[in-house]
Amino acid sequence: MSSVPEQLKPIFDQLDKNTDSNIAKLAKAISFKAVSADESLRQECFKKADYIQSLLEELNCTDIQQFDLGEEKPGLPLPPVILARLGTSPTKKTVVVYAHMDVQPASIEDGWDTEPFVLHHDKEKGLLIGRGATDDTGPLLAWLNMIEAHQQLNKELPVNLIFCFETMEESGSIGLENLIKEQSQVSGYFYKTCSKIDAVAISDNYWLGTTTPALTYGLRGCNYYQIKVSGPKADLHSGVFGGCIAEPMVDLVQLLSTLVNSQGEILIPGVKEMVAPVTEEEKNIYKSIKYSIEEFNESSNSNTCLFDNKEDVLMHRWRMPSLSVHGIENAFSGPGAKTVIPATCTGKFSIRTVPHIDSAKLDALVIDHVNKEFAKLNSKNTMVCELIHDGAYWYSDPYNESFTAASKATELVWGQKPDLTREGGSIPITLTFEEQLKSSVVLIPCGRGNDGAHSINEKIDLENYVNGGKLLGSYLYYLAE
Amino acid sequence: MSSVPEQLKPIFDQLDKNTDSNIAKLAKAISFKAVSADESLRQECFKKADYIQSLLEELNCTDIQQFDLGEEKPGLPLPPVILARLGTSPTKKTVVVYAHMDVQPASIEDGWDTEPFVLHHDKEKGLLIGRGATDDTGPLLAWLNMIEAHQQLNKELPVNLIFCFETMEESGSIGLENLIKEQSQVSGYFYKTCSKIDAVAISDNYWLGTTTPALTYGLRGCNYYQIKVSGPKADLHSGVFGGCIAEPMVDLVQLLSTLVNSQGEILIPGVKEMVAPVTEEEKNIYKSIKYSIEEFNESSNSNTCLFDNKEDVLMHRWRMPSLSVHGIENAFSGPGAKTVIPATCTGKFSIRTVPHIDSAKLDALVIDHVNKEFAKLNSKNTMVCELIHDGAYWYSDPYNESFTAASKATELVWGQKPDLTREGGSIPITLTFEEQLKSSVVLIPCGRGNDGAHSINEKIDLENYVNGGKLLGSYLYYLAE
Ligand SMILES: [Zn+2]
Ligand SMILES: [Zn+2]
Ligand SMILES: [Zn+2]
Ligand SMILES: [Zn+2]
Repeated sequence: MSSVPEQLKPIFDQLDKNTDSNIAKLAKAISFKAVSADESLRQECFKKADYIQSLLEELNCTDIQQFDLGEEKPGLPLPPVILARLGTSPTKKTVVVYAHMDVQPASIEDGWDTEPFVLHHDKEKGLLIGRGATDDTGPLLAWLNMIEAHQQLNKELPVNLIFCFETMEESGSIGLENLIKEQSQVSGYFYKTCSKIDAVAISDNYWLGTTTPALTYGLRGCNYYQIKVSGPKADLHSGVFGGCIAEPMVDLVQLLSTLVNSQGEILIPGVKEMVAPVTEEEKNIYKSIKYSIEEFNESSNSNTCLFDNKEDVLMHRWRMPSLSVHGIENAFSGPGAKTVIPATCTGKFSIRTVPHIDSAKLDALVIDHVNKEFAKLNSKNTMVCELIHDGAYWYSDPYNESFTAASKATELVWGQKPDLTREGGSIPITLTFEEQLKSSVVLIPCGRGNDGAHSINEKIDLENYVNGGKLLGSYLYYLAE
Repeated sequence: MSSVPEQLKPIFDQLDKNTDSNIAKLAKAISFKAVSADESLRQECFKKADYIQSLLEELNCTDIQQFDLGEEKPGLPLPPVILARLGTSPTKKTVVVYAHMDVQPASIEDGWDTEPFVLHHDKEKGLLIGRGATDDTGPLLAWLNMIEAHQQLNKELPVNLIFCFETMEESGSIGLENLIKEQSQVSGYFYKTCSKIDAVAISDNYWLGTTTPALTYGLRGCNYYQIKVSGPKADLHSGVFGGCIAEPMVDLVQLLSTLVNSQGEILIPGVKEMVAPVTEEEKNIYKSIKYSIEEFNESSNSNTCLFDNKEDVLMHRWRMPSLSVHGIENAFSGPGAKTVIPATCTGKFSIRTVPHIDSAKLDALVIDHVNKEFAKLNSKNTMVCELIHDGAYWYSDPYNESFTAASKATELVWGQKPDLTREGGSIPITLTFEEQLKSSVVLIPCGRGNDGAHSINEKIDLENYVNGGKLLGSYLYYLAE
């Protein structure tokens, strides 16, 4: 950090000075048990939103609104989305900042070493431990810490900000997509004081490992299918009917066996052909990333990796489609030896999608393939294969203006170029922002790959918490240049 | 019933006279909620055993013993097996009579038209409706009714009887096999007053249809297997790991797909070859049975029968092996779209066995086949295929002395020759009796194919209940000749 620009130097110093109070702020924020998946804790989600709103008020945000998203089900109100504004200068760029206030379930009985909703500062290891420390309360506060430092120094931010903080991310972001669509109309919240959103920044993911910072420019999508085979009208006894009746489970395992082989190759004709070719530029990205098969095996706790080199692993995680067979509904699934012939059974599988797989074309290929395979079986049962859920992939140019700013910021704060990563899972809201606001989205992780976001002993390194404020501030600085 | 022998005529008349009191006895017996599968009703099993014991006492049975089988699990005592004796004449044959006192679960909420534990006499249709009416309390009482009629007329039975009544049949007959083995020793209960058991008679199954009586001379066995595929140490997220990791479910569906095809043909090499050839004599048995594909379809409530003629259906139900895939343990089995990669999954399948499949050889063929198929997959996962339960098939000569007596009795009482049937399911205790007592076993059903033994509105036709006593009495009469 030798060459910190003049404008940023005092901000960085101020953030360092504020370390203790910023830790205290994190301690307060994670003390709310804002578990969106736990109905009994719904009020904690509301309280945490009120607390975050009070912080936005202290920072002189304007037009702060808690949007009521209605009920999750009768009697269970959805917690709010907060939209707020800081700066409305027509000469500055406008950046939308997304984060979420809710957290994953946690209790000490799960195996935590300390109470999950009481921040534990492990000073020896430099860790801040608690549910939400890295996902996503810590990064959310990093934004606010950075703004506070500016204001303490009477410095203006180089851009206008619009905050979008939700409280249902860990439970499917119910209601958020609709809200964004509504507020992206000409008369909507996003366009009330500006004509254009210049960038969307999200800090809700992680470095690949523990030593190299990252920027994320792609997410796979997910098309989830089911195959339902139906035969007799009720479950039958295999002693009485076995050998005389067409068994739905027999057909189903035949069909599921035609989808993918044990090497992970998708066997459905036409799918591979839709995948974007790997460019040389892209290959260089994988080559430059510090990663190893050993790290992968450590994360799966086994030696079941399908590949023997990091490039293949990264490509198949991030930019190649995959097909997983998840299970079977309505067949016998308990322990022991039940001699049932299930009357109906429903196999579940999904395909992770990547550029340039057309979602509707994929559905057609999958359903056509399964229909053809079923016809080959010459079965007396009936079969329906259908899509039951989909979420599109997202892919951004990792060298555009916003990524370039984020890359410079990362190098400034961490002293090294970020890994350009993609992720195998999907964050559907990323695509919604991009489409609705017609703006580039950048994923700027604050935390490390071993933070344990959805696990026990979730932590953020104190260094990452403090540097998070510096990183996000620098990003805005370079973006405004 | 024109030519009822002199000795039997008064017995038949007496049974007709006793109809009302015998209905009352059935009403009392089924009023006990002796559901062996329901721990909370265990005391009802004991009470019903006490009631049946009191009936045996009234009939002047001797050496009545309730055997304590220990505990099903800590704190849950097993209900008793009752052994009792009637007659010890060294000049008479000795017949062991098996029946069970426990019943399947039942509650009006399941859809019964009347309270299942309150006998309902539908006089219009001539039905006695209630849980246990046909399985197996009604037939058990048919034995006792027949004896009572003899005693009211001061007539001796033509044979000695040893009763073996258990109370755990619907829950795996826990403890019974061991008890029979113990009591079949030289010093055991079965040989205390006789040197030889001449026959074992069981009335715990049903006619094939509703118009022709039956005798059952064969039961298929069941070898139950599981295939456990293990990969990563914990369930993984398909977004993060899909495409890079060997998925146990993918291997498992490949393996399950190699076992049997949609036409019901077992694909494991060597299995078919062990099946006994169909004899001409046997073919004639199938030909003579009144049965149709329509009846089969009615019983499965669908049109998914694999065959188009009754002979094939009967042969594949009774004397050909079959392989059923029951389900998968530990995979995703709920509703909805969970994107899990199960770390381990266990497929369950079973093979119904018939003469002359050697059980141990079958196990070797199955396990060898699955191992070979798994090797072909070239998977990084690990796999274990193993037998988890087996019960041998049973097959008797349907023209031996005991069957001939039962056949004559059937023709006498019902005016038509019985169907000679086999069944697809297994009653393991049949084989235990045969092996331990070195005696022929005959299955003499009292009830009809539509009695709904394990279903709602279980019934026995009043005609079958009354004729049951006549049938079993006649059987003993002809056996003694
Ligand atoms: Zn998150
Ligand atoms: Zn999360
Ligand atoms: Zn029974
Ligand atoms: Zn039963």
